[in-house]
Amino acid sequence: MAQRSVFFISDGTGITAETLGHSLIAHFSGTTFKQIRLPFMDTPEKASVALRQISQAETEDGNRAILVMTLVNSKIRTIFESSGAFCMDLFGTFIEPLTKELGQTPVSAVGMARGVGSIEYRERLEAINFTLRHDDGLHDDGLAEADVILVGVSRVGKTPTSLYLAMQFGVKTANYPLIPEDFERLQLPGSLAEHRAKLFGLTIAPDRLSKMRQERRPDSFYASLDNCRAETRLAEDMMQKEDIRWIDSTTRSIEEIATAVLQEVGIKRNL
Amino acid sequence: MAQRSVFFISDGTGITAETLGHSLIAHFSGTTFKQIRLPFMDTPEKASVALRQISQAETEDGNRAILVMTLVNSKIRTIFESSGAFCMDLFGTFIEPLTKELGQTPVSAVGMARGVGSIEYRERLEAINFTLRHDDGLHDDGLAEADVILVGVSRVGKTPTSLYLAMQFGVKTANYPLIPEDFERLQLPGSLAEHRAKLFGLTIAPDRLSKMRQERRPDSFYASLDNCRAETRLAEDMMQKEDIRWIDSTTRSIEEIATAVLQEVGIKRNL
Repeated sequence: MAQRSVFFISDGTGITAETLGHSLIAHFSGTTFKQIRLPFMDTPEKASVALRQISQAETEDGNRAILVMTLVNSKIRTIFESSGAFCMDLFGTFIEPLTKELGQTPVSAVGMARGVGSIEYRERLEAINFTLRHDDGLHDDGLAEADVILVGVSRVGKTPTSLYLAMQFGVKTANYPLIPEDFERLQLPGSLAEHRAKLFGLTIAPDRLSKMRQERRPDSFYASLDNCRAETRLAEDMMQKEDIRWIDSTTRSIEEIATAVLQEVGIKRNL
Repeated sequence: MAQRSVFFISDGTGITAETLGHSLIAHFSGTTFKQIRLPFMDTPEKASVALRQISQAETEDGNRAILVMTLVNSKIRTIFESSGAFCMDLFGTFIEPLTKELGQTPVSAVGMARGVGSIEYRERLEAINFTLRHDDGLHDDGLAEADVILVGVSRVGKTPTSLYLAMQFGVKTANYPLIPEDFERLQLPGSLAEHRAKLFGLTIAPDRLSKMRQERRPDSFYASLDNCRAETRLAEDMMQKEDIRWIDSTTRSIEEIATAVLQEVGIKRNL
């Protein structure tokens, strides 16, 4: 299989370039992609060093490199464009048409979105702190402040989804486990009932749940397929009875679950 | 100020479209952007509903809308292109030239990157679990498994940076607080010394640290500017003495700190 080196180049973190680059190369299964991050490319000197690295990769691959760039500085952009590599220039491609559309001169500063001083940034940090403090039913106080409260059985994916909601979208997310005691009492854990409008459930296929629990406690009753079948069924019954919206996390990534939760709960803030 | 509605449209989560869209509109300070997420646009019916929403926004704004799209399905793409809105079509723009460059037909499946079944995805989940378990010096065992161990005074930004490294890059990140007792003994907490190569320090301007600590414990000695000055100076002295690389987090976002840590520690995996 052909090998191609893909460089994500930015005068900022390069996370935007990497995110788009990833989803573009995922469309091509016939090539092995070697991916290299080149962040903070903010001087011609750094660009020159990078050019040598690119040229070396091209020699090793026997193919020209692919550059995915988000460079605010147009001089640095020109340096990379002159490399002879295949360039996908995200800012160069879209900023000019957008400038015409808006009839307004663009400001050029690196890493302006989500900057440290912004309100959005502070809200994200607050959301992360809130989410950590309200992981796994740790604290009942402050649930009134939550934007959403995820519920579900142990290992269904509540914690990573909560953290993603906080980190990516600035959404204060608590999560609360549904445990066998709740099923016996046939009712929601006490402190949750009053926050019903914010509740959102996750469920999962029993065999997948069993596999994930095996990793934590091998050969336990907790991880057994029978128990996982019983717990997910009881949790789903309870969510139905209590009229809680829920989705199945089995084939969904954290990003997909988080996006679906946002959409269902209808959270508008922080965008 | 003119208002424009920006729609992030995808048959997947739309996170890629949103990420790039954010950094593009951040260049234009003369417009108020109203941002709307339209994920999971995978049927013509959903697209038709969305078209009405777009057209309504255009009436309200008195300006045509801006669509940032990552649509794998070209039929759905055509529906949105016919709307008369200003379109920035990320896949449409780059997939074709990339197809020519690679000489290979693209596969079209939604949300292929970072899918649930992939090794990369499992590694990210493992990294998140590891990072939570090793937050704030919680567990000494397993530090050998860490890719990086962040150290620094309380509230310097260790936890959010650790979580970001795990979530975005799949890097197993432990973090360990440097506390006054360590400074009195003039040495690193016992369990850290043997993992010196993985240590990375964060520091921060004393006045900013004081502000952040005030939010947690108002008017405490802990939060006082004098104490924050003393702690950061002692922490920096110790890091210098112990030959630990470190950066200042004062004006850097979580993304910027995480990217810098990756670069300095030279972690190559998970890309």
